[in-house]
Amino acid sequence: MDEVYLFDEAAKLKMSKYELGGKGYGLVEMTRIKLPVPPGIVITTRMCSRYFKEKKLWPSIKEKILEKMKLLEKKSGKKFGSAENPLFVSVRSGAPVSMPGMMDTVLNLGINDEIAAALSKRTGDRFAYDTYRRFIQLFGSIVLKIDKAKFDKVLDDVKKTRGAKSDVQLEGEDWKEVVEKYKEIVRRETGKEIEQDPYKQLFMAVGAVFESWWNKRAIEYRKIYNIPDSYGTAVSIVTMVYGNYDNRSGTGVAFTRNPSTGEKKLYGEFLMQAQGEDVVAGIRTPISTDELKKSMPGVYKQLQDTANKLEKYFKDMQDIEFTIESGKFYMLQTRNGKRTPFAAIKVATDMVKEGLIKKEEAIMRVAPEQLEQLYHKQIDRSGNPKPIAKGLPASPGAASGKVIFDIAKAVEEGKKGEKIILVRSETTPEDIAGIAVSTGILTSRGGMTSHAAVVTRGMGKPCIVGAEEISIDFNGRLFRVGADVVHEGDIITIDGTSGEVYKGELKMIEPKESKELGTFLGWCDSARRLGIRANADTPEMVRKAMENGAEGVGLARTERMFNAPERLGIVQKMILAKDKEERQKYLSMLKPMQKSDFKAMLEIANGKPVTIRLIDMPLHEFLPKLDELLPKVTEMRLKGVKEGLNEAEDMLSRVMELREANPMMGQRGVRLGIIYTEIYEMQVEAMLEAAIELKKEGKKAELEIMVSQVAIANELKEARKVIEETAERVFKEKGARVNYKIGTMIETPRAALVAKDLANYADFFSFGTNDLTQGTFAFSRDDIEGKLMQPYLNNHVLDKDPFSTVDIDGVGRLIAICSREGKQAKKTLKVGVCGEHGGDPDSIKFFNTVDIDYVSMSPYRVPIAKLAAAQAAINAKTSATTV
Amino acid sequence: MDEVYLFDEAAKLKMSKYELGGKGYGLVEMTRIKLPVPPGIVITTRMCSRYFKEKKLWPSIKEKILEKMKLLEKKSGKKFGSAENPLFVSVRSGAPVSMPGMMDTVLNLGINDEIAAALSKRTGDRFAYDTYRRFIQLFGSIVLKIDKAKFDKVLDDVKKTRGAKSDVQLEGEDWKEVVEKYKEIVRRETGKEIEQDPYKQLFMAVGAVFESWWNKRAIEYRKIYNIPDSYGTAVSIVTMVYGNYDNRSGTGVAFTRNPSTGEKKLYGEFLMQAQGEDVVAGIRTPISTDELKKSMPGVYKQLQDTANKLEKYFKDMQDIEFTIESGKFYMLQTRNGKRTPFAAIKVATDMVKEGLIKKEEAIMRVAPEQLEQLYHKQIDRSGNPKPIAKGLPASPGAASGKVIFDIAKAVEEGKKGEKIILVRSETTPEDIAGIAVSTGILTSRGGMTSHAAVVTRGMGKPCIVGAEEISIDFNGRLFRVGADVVHEGDIITIDGTSGEVYKGELKMIEPKESKELGTFLGWCDSARRLGIRANADTPEMVRKAMENGAEGVGLARTERMFNAPERLGIVQKMILAKDKEERQKYLSMLKPMQKSDFKAMLEIANGKPVTIRLIDMPLHEFLPKLDELLPKVTEMRLKGVKEGLNEAEDMLSRVMELREANPMMGQRGVRLGIIYTEIYEMQVEAMLEAAIELKKEGKKAELEIMVSQVAIANELKEARKVIEETAERVFKEKGARVNYKIGTMIETPRAALVAKDLANYADFFSFGTNDLTQGTFAFSRDDIEGKLMQPYLNNHVLDKDPFSTVDIDGVGRLIAICSREGKQAKKTLKVGVCGEHGGDPDSIKFFNTVDIDYVSMSPYRVPIAKLAAAQAAINAKTSATTV
Repeated sequence: MDEVYLFDEAAKLKMSKYELGGKGYGLVEMTRIKLPVPPGIVITTRMCSRYFKEKKLWPSIKEKILEKMKLLEKKSGKKFGSAENPLFVSVRSGAPVSMPGMMDTVLNLGINDEIAAALSKRTGDRFAYDTYRRFIQLFGSIVLKIDKAKFDKVLDDVKKTRGAKSDVQLEGEDWKEVVEKYKEIVRRETGKEIEQDPYKQLFMAVGAVFESWWNKRAIEYRKIYNIPDSYGTAVSIVTMVYGNYDNRSGTGVAFTRNPSTGEKKLYGEFLMQAQGEDVVAGIRTPISTDELKKSMPGVYKQLQDTANKLEKYFKDMQDIEFTIESGKFYMLQTRNGKRTPFAAIKVATDMVKEGLIKKEEAIMRVAPEQLEQLYHKQIDRSGNPKPIAKGLPASPGAASGKVIFDIAKAVEEGKKGEKIILVRSETTPEDIAGIAVSTGILTSRGGMTSHAAVVTRGMGKPCIVGAEEISIDFNGRLFRVGADVVHEGDIITIDGTSGEVYKGELKMIEPKESKELGTFLGWCDSARRLGIRANADTPEMVRKAMENGAEGVGLARTERMFNAPERLGIVQKMILAKDKEERQKYLSMLKPMQKSDFKAMLEIANGKPVTIRLIDMPLHEFLPKLDELLPKVTEMRLKGVKEGLNEAEDMLSRVMELREANPMMGQRGVRLGIIYTEIYEMQVEAMLEAAIELKKEGKKAELEIMVSQVAIANELKEARKVIEETAERVFKEKGARVNYKIGTMIETPRAALVAKDLANYADFFSFGTNDLTQGTFAFSRDDIEGKLMQPYLNNHVLDKDPFSTVDIDGVGRLIAICSREGKQAKKTLKVGVCGEHGGDPDSIKFFNTVDIDYVSMSPYRVPIAKLAAAQAAINAKTSATTV
Repeated sequence: MDEVYLFDEAAKLKMSKYELGGKGYGLVEMTRIKLPVPPGIVITTRMCSRYFKEKKLWPSIKEKILEKMKLLEKKSGKKFGSAENPLFVSVRSGAPVSMPGMMDTVLNLGINDEIAAALSKRTGDRFAYDTYRRFIQLFGSIVLKIDKAKFDKVLDDVKKTRGAKSDVQLEGEDWKEVVEKYKEIVRRETGKEIEQDPYKQLFMAVGAVFESWWNKRAIEYRKIYNIPDSYGTAVSIVTMVYGNYDNRSGTGVAFTRNPSTGEKKLYGEFLMQAQGEDVVAGIRTPISTDELKKSMPGVYKQLQDTANKLEKYFKDMQDIEFTIESGKFYMLQTRNGKRTPFAAIKVATDMVKEGLIKKEEAIMRVAPEQLEQLYHKQIDRSGNPKPIAKGLPASPGAASGKVIFDIAKAVEEGKKGEKIILVRSETTPEDIAGIAVSTGILTSRGGMTSHAAVVTRGMGKPCIVGAEEISIDFNGRLFRVGADVVHEGDIITIDGTSGEVYKGELKMIEPKESKELGTFLGWCDSARRLGIRANADTPEMVRKAMENGAEGVGLARTERMFNAPERLGIVQKMILAKDKEERQKYLSMLKPMQKSDFKAMLEIANGKPVTIRLIDMPLHEFLPKLDELLPKVTEMRLKGVKEGLNEAEDMLSRVMELREANPMMGQRGVRLGIIYTEIYEMQVEAMLEAAIELKKEGKKAELEIMVSQVAIANELKEARKVIEETAERVFKEKGARVNYKIGTMIETPRAALVAKDLANYADFFSFGTNDLTQGTFAFSRDDIEGKLMQPYLNNHVLDKDPFSTVDIDGVGRLIAICSREGKQAKKTLKVGVCGEHGGDPDSIKFFNTVDIDYVSMSPYRVPIAKLAAAQAAINAKTSATTV
């Protein structure tokens, strides 16, 4: 069926935005509610798909368009192609999802030599030939594919000859000359005259608008915003109205509320005697809607009434275009208005107060990524600064500082109180001191779950990773981006929210206090089903988590505590120990340090559950790296250095012994814990003694002990035995008992597959989605993220990075199997997610569907997760009721 | 219920071997078919389990035993505890699964001072006191836990005093003295007299036999043979009959057929005037059944009739014990006889010919491991050689040779034609030349799927891995095992079937030709459902595979071909190439080599399918190792060596660049192939050109191209595109087309989970169960097999090494999901297994149940796999009909 409808026909059919495109939908809906929309025709997106198959307009659709054009003539009282009473139309694109400026539109179509001449008799040359030249300019560039610059140059030349600074200074004669010159361009470029038959113009324009779906910039835009290529564009053919028709004419754009602050007040601009594009082009300075209120209260009132009507109908803030032709008011476009995060919250909460929308609708109005920006500094983009490079936005917020390339120097400068941007190819756990003193981090390699990304997200520091355009010359102490050179000590600004790098220090916008935010998050808390915890390895992080409203700690990584500089030495001695006894000696030195950390964390959590993971890292990760140690020892041997040689050789031989071919799948977690039980024992003692002390002090402590890297039910059984035996020993020694839970990470594929067996020994499961993703794909993050992920994403081998958004088909299937079978086996089992995905809105949406009880993420992402969880719950309810 | 039955009562209840134990079952079944079994009582294994709970005999079972003893007295016409007509019994253990000699038995129970004295009046001192001392000896050591050596010493002393060389030379008086001295031992050791009450003796003995289930040697035995601890032992109480009663008495053991050759002829030994244990103890030389036939034709006939009856009833060769008391023939035991692999085949095929069993039963009679031995040299164990060490039996067969520790020396000695046993801590791909010239391989580290294990199995060379007792001193050029020292050049013998290492050169038994084997394997071919292919990387291996009856090649690893010494240099240059063009130059040098290999392999397979896997290994595996290269470059730098420094530094920087943190999960297989497409292209060209040449020569070639390491359907889509485009190019160039299939390994957990998507791009799936096991457990074989597998198996964290026998709960579940969903999506999809598990009988049994079409394994394991597949099919049929 050929789907070509008049606006009022489409309104009766109740067609969706997916069929009519955004622009068409707005016009049709406004027609429905009797707003003054110029009559028009819409061709659906389905016709666009068919067009791509047929590669041209087919006969029956042409007939249908002709048929509807006749009806349009009736409605408008004008005639298409008539010299006396000509109907002019715009042919507009409009995708189901807003793609502003990405596709093409032809205006003033229906004019030709004869009609222009006739028109000039009624309106004068100025209007007639300005209109004609506007048509040739757009038709020429869009339909005939003539370089637009050629038209611009002609206009510039004419203006120069006339000494005119702007278009309005040109007279009728001038426009006539421009038209002649434009026609000459068309003749020269196409070998033909500009098309004189209005219907031929129309069919050519419709085809060209369909084809503009494949504009290079449109393809790019869709790739960035994940818009399916299959959507296609609709085409609207709209009767032209002219804001430049006479001195009672004008045109404007407006938001129904302030898009920056959310204030409920019209916010826009208006220009007398102008066409729509002139407002944007800045030919003259438009007046604000506030001024309009004073100078043209009638128009303002009409505008305000329309805005109210639109908000009432669409139940959202609208972004509108309107035109006044000879005093008559026309609406040309309406769509939901883009707004700042701050405004988004304000508008959503206000509209609830106004009774316009429900709380659940308000929650759906704010994107989780928007919310995130409220918590971080932003670059002030009013000056339109140009980035020199772009990487992956690994940790949000903006920061400026001195470029520093090495850790020692960063620490030194940091002590002086300098603001530092640490620039590295990538970071490793050893760099932690340097990261800690830096204001922001920029790496040229690594992905969204690289070390730098994970650590900075945990710290709430801005970070950009994988900025591959940046070429670092460590010896030269500079980095290059194309022709740009940045030396150590130069100031740069990074925006971890967008991934953009700027030279110099940019102006920042500080995060604003918002009284509506608390209300809004409260609604989210009521709406969501998923619990929200935070991953926190230190007392400071636990404090941040509690401030941001986390309901507990879902993951505290104990070995990160081992890495503190004053502890690492003891840890290394423990690893180098010849036997269990010696190992225990060093472990007992570590115990008070761990205990005091645990106590502080439990105390701050104040009765909310704190999940502490027993040692997970392979031992060799605490030792020096082979490729540093080996040349060092080789050198000592060759040079005959005696001092320290024995120690270095001992270290080397232990490093060689502990070295693993594939450490991610090596002796980690429970595989270490049930072999060297003394490490688990020390950690369990430290936790329980901390909890007992708090109890004795009358404080609350809710401890959950977590075992990692489990693949076999008996591993967990053994670990549970070690923990329980240690606990009984501690309880006896201290003469007091405390409650605690024992659970396991689910991070090997097998663990997910044997959930019913694991449930026998677990009070809770917690998905370690990073490792689970790694294992399920057999993707080593360290190796694959850098080398393979970008090519895979670019070539659509993968649609999304599975380390950022959970892979539903593979990893997600394992998660679903595991949570279902685990809970079937044990009704009281709690199931959480503590991997990076715990804080990702798309992943949260999935977790909400598969019987996960809570998600846990960086303390800084807690509010975002709350919003995402609330939206997931509302989505689930909606789809449940519609099914 | 207290389960204590007379033999004929148990026969009516049709109880199983699991309830009666092997010994009890034999006695009960012989009672059923009216063979002359001494009357007796059996107590079931369920009572054993209860005993372990009660920790003693409970009152009701004692009463039940008393009740049955009364009935036994009636049957035997004797009276338990009577001095005039005493009933003596043996109290025998018997587990559901044969555990020869592992548990305890008490003989001659029911005797005491009074009864012995009365007995001596009727039989003389000799029989009476020999019987009494035998009772005290066993009751004392087994029930009273007195060190058996104490009794032996007394007997030795008495014999010495009498100048007697053997027991039979002792007279009645001597036995009386022995009895007195034995009683003194009991008195001294227990503080009590030897128990005089026959019923107390009986209850104590029953308890002791139950307890012998937990003998240290019994526990060890069960661990080795995977017998569940939960089985427990039954107890038989059997009327004693005496082969030493008078000169018309005797005792013997026999097989119903020759257990060595399978010949259908009684094969055993007989001793006049002796008790059963005397035959085994070798006190006098027994006569063979052949001699028996001549000297006592009547007895022989009785024995032969019994043997025939037993074989007819049990439908298998029996291993029997019998006794003649005063001319009366008694059967004391029957069980299925253990036999050599050679005999197993002969007996099974003969019995089919004799109409005793069906072909399917014959197939079930031969263990796959037995079959394997037919193909390999065996150590002649007649001299009872003692191994010095034991490792994992990685590749079967025996070999002797000079111990050599390094590859260069092995190659050198190998050239001289020396037989070499290569001894290493473990082997790597670089050692391949040394392995090739060695007769056998022994490593002190590594597991069943370590490099040495996999490579030698493929070559059919004996290999022992993970012999951890062996401590190699490379500098000293020797290895130590405890106090033993073996120097380089010393001869050792290794048995890859048992994992045993011997000093010196042992006598070997060559594999025998067997005309029955062909028949037997033919039956297996008819019975099995699973197809059997072989993994073969070279033309020679393909030839071996075809000789052994493989139905195709399931896996040819192309990168093993890259590792040939003359090729590795080119491969390295290809990897070091600066750009695609240079890479293609070296690839084009490799192509003719690969093509000639492929052509030879396809030609030998002669129309059977050959699955060739495209490059799978990560590139860095072809480059020198970092820990060798790094000290070398460091040394060159320090010493100021100029020559070769640039090359070495280039190599080092490329090694560093390609180095991966977790290479198993890195850029391998398809992740390499769709990025550096020129490698795939070269390999596909080589394969297809080979196939086209064969076609032109009028020969058959059935090519299957396999992609590895796939985790995402789009990876396979891309790979398929590269292959198909290359194929079309080759077809055009060569002016000819050939058929070929494209398939994928399933070796990442995710691939198994998205089978329905992969099926879109695959003609076949082949499970790479090694990597799939690795990924599912997150067990790095290289790291875990050595360090963790043994402790895990010892502590029952795992029951079986999942790299040897497929893990049904985890990996198996993925396999089942994948084969089901793959075939649902595409009916024509063929699904195979080409990992190490393809040749493991237990795994084959599982694969048979989950809709796998074929398994592929080392060419040497093809017959074993055929048998295992046939057994799996028969098992499935049986369990399907019983359900």
